[in-house]
Amino acid sequence: MISQSGSRPETLSDGVRLLRSGLATGGVVTTNEQFAEWLTRCEGTARMRVERVPLTQLKGWHFTEGRGTLMHDSGKFFRVEGMDITRTGASPLSWQQPLINQPEVGILGLLAKEFDGVLHFLMQAKVEPGNRRQLQLSPTVQATRSNYTKVHGGASTPYLEHFLPTGRGRVVADVLQSEQGTWFRGKRNRNMVVETTAVVPVHDNFCWLTFGQIRRLMAEPNLINMDSRTVLACLPMASSGWPDDMVDDSPTPAYAAELRRSFQAGEADARHTSVEIRSWLNDVRTETELRVDRVPLSLLRDWNVSDDDIAHREGKHFKVIGVSVESGQREVTAWSQPLLAPNPGVVAFLTTRVEGVLHVLVQASVEPGFRDVVELGPTVQCSPINYADAPPAERPRFLDYVLEATEGVRYDVVLSEEGGRFYHAECRYMVIECDDPGALEHHPEFRWMTIRQILAMRRHSNYLNVQTRSLLACIGSLW
Amino acid sequence: MISQSGSRPETLSDGVRLLRSGLATGGVVTTNEQFAEWLTRCEGTARMRVERVPLTQLKGWHFTEGRGTLMHDSGKFFRVEGMDITRTGASPLSWQQPLINQPEVGILGLLAKEFDGVLHFLMQAKVEPGNRRQLQLSPTVQATRSNYTKVHGGASTPYLEHFLPTGRGRVVADVLQSEQGTWFRGKRNRNMVVETTAVVPVHDNFCWLTFGQIRRLMAEPNLINMDSRTVLACLPMASSGWPDDMVDDSPTPAYAAELRRSFQAGEADARHTSVEIRSWLNDVRTETELRVDRVPLSLLRDWNVSDDDIAHREGKHFKVIGVSVESGQREVTAWSQPLLAPNPGVVAFLTTRVEGVLHVLVQASVEPGFRDVVELGPTVQCSPINYADAPPAERPRFLDYVLEATEGVRYDVVLSEEGGRFYHAECRYMVIECDDPGALEHHPEFRWMTIRQILAMRRHSNYLNVQTRSLLACIGSLW
Repeated sequence: MISQSGSRPETLSDGVRLLRSGLATGGVVTTNEQFAEWLTRCEGTARMRVERVPLTQLKGWHFTEGRGTLMHDSGKFFRVEGMDITRTGASPLSWQQPLINQPEVGILGLLAKEFDGVLHFLMQAKVEPGNRRQLQLSPTVQATRSNYTKVHGGASTPYLEHFLPTGRGRVVADVLQSEQGTWFRGKRNRNMVVETTAVVPVHDNFCWLTFGQIRRLMAEPNLINMDSRTVLACLPMASSGWPDDMVDDSPTPAYAAELRRSFQAGEADARHTSVEIRSWLNDVRTETELRVDRVPLSLLRDWNVSDDDIAHREGKHFKVIGVSVESGQREVTAWSQPLLAPNPGVVAFLTTRVEGVLHVLVQASVEPGFRDVVELGPTVQCSPINYADAPPAERPRFLDYVLEATEGVRYDVVLSEEGGRFYHAECRYMVIECDDPGALEHHPEFRWMTIRQILAMRRHSNYLNVQTRSLLACIGSLW
Repeated sequence: MISQSGSRPETLSDGVRLLRSGLATGGVVTTNEQFAEWLTRCEGTARMRVERVPLTQLKGWHFTEGRGTLMHDSGKFFRVEGMDITRTGASPLSWQQPLINQPEVGILGLLAKEFDGVLHFLMQAKVEPGNRRQLQLSPTVQATRSNYTKVHGGASTPYLEHFLPTGRGRVVADVLQSEQGTWFRGKRNRNMVVETTAVVPVHDNFCWLTFGQIRRLMAEPNLINMDSRTVLACLPMASSGWPDDMVDDSPTPAYAAELRRSFQAGEADARHTSVEIRSWLNDVRTETELRVDRVPLSLLRDWNVSDDDIAHREGKHFKVIGVSVESGQREVTAWSQPLLAPNPGVVAFLTTRVEGVLHVLVQASVEPGFRDVVELGPTVQCSPINYADAPPAERPRFLDYVLEATEGVRYDVVLSEEGGRFYHAECRYMVIECDDPGALEHHPEFRWMTIRQILAMRRHSNYLNVQTRSLLACIGSLW
């Protein structure tokens, strides 16, 4: 099934080669049928037993005195700490919450190679303790700094050498991106796509797929994991070069054509210029002061620390729970760890036509874990449960519109957040076409942008939050 | 001399309009003769008396107990603090030094308006206490957060309203940029260019100039101040659209043509792709840990704190001195403040042809004040005095080449750093064409880039350090 003979890259640009790979939805090296068989086989052999255990009984982890911090005995991996957060500026706010402190740069690496003239990507079938659907497709390499400096003491991460400075292939994409800024403090991942021309042995649980195949798999619930989505969103696909004889086999051809046009739209077709969008973010950055101070977990207002877990007193936001894991697949075969178990989320983009060109509604999302105050978030990004008893004026803008949408829903799939840190963290990812002209009304914390404008930002840090990048991957499944 | 009737912007792009303004070296609203007269007049009326005073006698400033920190009695403006800096990674290093702590975002705002079809910029003749040549040309607005929130208690900053969210014109450029990362901790300025179509009263000491006039004034020593240079470097001038009948009146026409070609060069003509350059910076960011911890000034290794000043024991780097200032021009008429008095510097770009296209040699500059570890610095950026007794192997690479260059020197002008914080801080800015093929030898901390590649980065934060941006403004004077 897997051909080992890599052909040489042509002289086409990466952008056009990615576009072509994106059109190869039927597969080249691996047919869709072969992929389905491989996935079933991987699911059959995946072995991971996950059991809830009280936080105080987590092997290798302990609370510091007075239950101030939850940390690993080695001081490594990550810590769960309490934070007091004060935000000044246009919408002042002050609250307390636990945050995962993991101020290090992990690698999310996707290995690319050309076969039969088409770029392929080496996807991994990976089980993670927090995943409800345990086995999902991850990038080739998903390594925390602890992983690749081997704090685990386990086996080394396969294919990691392709992403390290020595022995690296040709870099197609490389950008430091934030993770969930309401759950993590200072966590970043290095999203890398590297093309190799070397012979690549294909280990169990790895499979070469075209960009087109991966795109289409975004329609399946809980299959393409968060790390894959953020790397895929960073692929520098070209906005032009679509073949004249392109057969559009997308699920929604008319919408697909609009997405493509929005990807090709010039600055003159955009509601705001890109510099105006950046200027708006700079306004937020200069007006908003975000103070994040540590407080002991046990003293967090509204939160309760028990032997069992750390939970919000009204059941909002998330819990921190403990799990004990046994796996026949992972680097080490048994370990314990805390996981953050959030309430189910909704992450949605509203789209509409502005002067004939499809635009996407983004939000200036201020999150305590960001390195530079604000990034562009989706139209809606929240756990509806947290607002169950909130008066209408305090509900997130556009949430009700999204939850009640019946027409115009172009994408609606449940996907998981990173299962190595989050427990059953499922979000409903939605893309909704909205014909209501009222949506164009100006709200200071929102802006309409073309697909091209958003995608131009993925090359740089501190612009697109992880939910936006995920949704860009979802949108990528539609054309 | 100043016409008040602004014409409407045409439908040309900002890039092409900037290019045209850049070609108007003879001036439109203000002739070069009128400018010279205006400058002489401003210099004649400028009144600023600056006297050295011991730090312990600075009115309104005090050392905290044990001479730990030097700060304003109000706690505002800025502080001089001691820092212990440890850098791990490829070139581990550990040292201590004073740093100016001013973690706020100031505004450097340049107001633009079209007259007779040509974009003009409102330049200010501004005196600063640290300037040896006291009066220099600054952007329209040069305001610290203290300025515009009026900590001074003085008059409000003229034209500031054009740069605030309400009442702002059309944003042409807006980017948060770092300042000297070896002197400042966390200081950033918001570099803004805003175009207005409103009637703009022209106050004393302000003058409308074309981009072409300002470019040419870069050839004069100590005239275009640092704040102007960094804003000018952020102007989004187009790389193409040069008129066919362009008369090249540049000082070095052949070199000017090469600079233009390098600005137009595609990625295929570049020695490294832009993603490879960003990937290299990400390597440094992930490999280097930069720890900056406070230590009391009085305990700084190698530094001596006296009543008079804070000085390096061997006379290296800089001193912190005190000045008392009387001015008839500034918002308040008398004040005292510390200034950082550095040794004279050399800031230089080497350029060479790589496969026929001019490239510029940049350096990965790790500086403790940066928000993200590293930015692109010039080929050489140092105070030669600091290395007077250093063995050859420890002298900064290319420093001797630059100091000994006789041929190929395309730009060589002494310019000042910001006179509101730095005392007689003069650097020799140089652009040197280098035909030695040995320069192309690979050094891990250096990369050759085209002008276009460097300029593409000026729209985003954390890429180009202030010395590089200054040199880009210098290079801008050559075409």
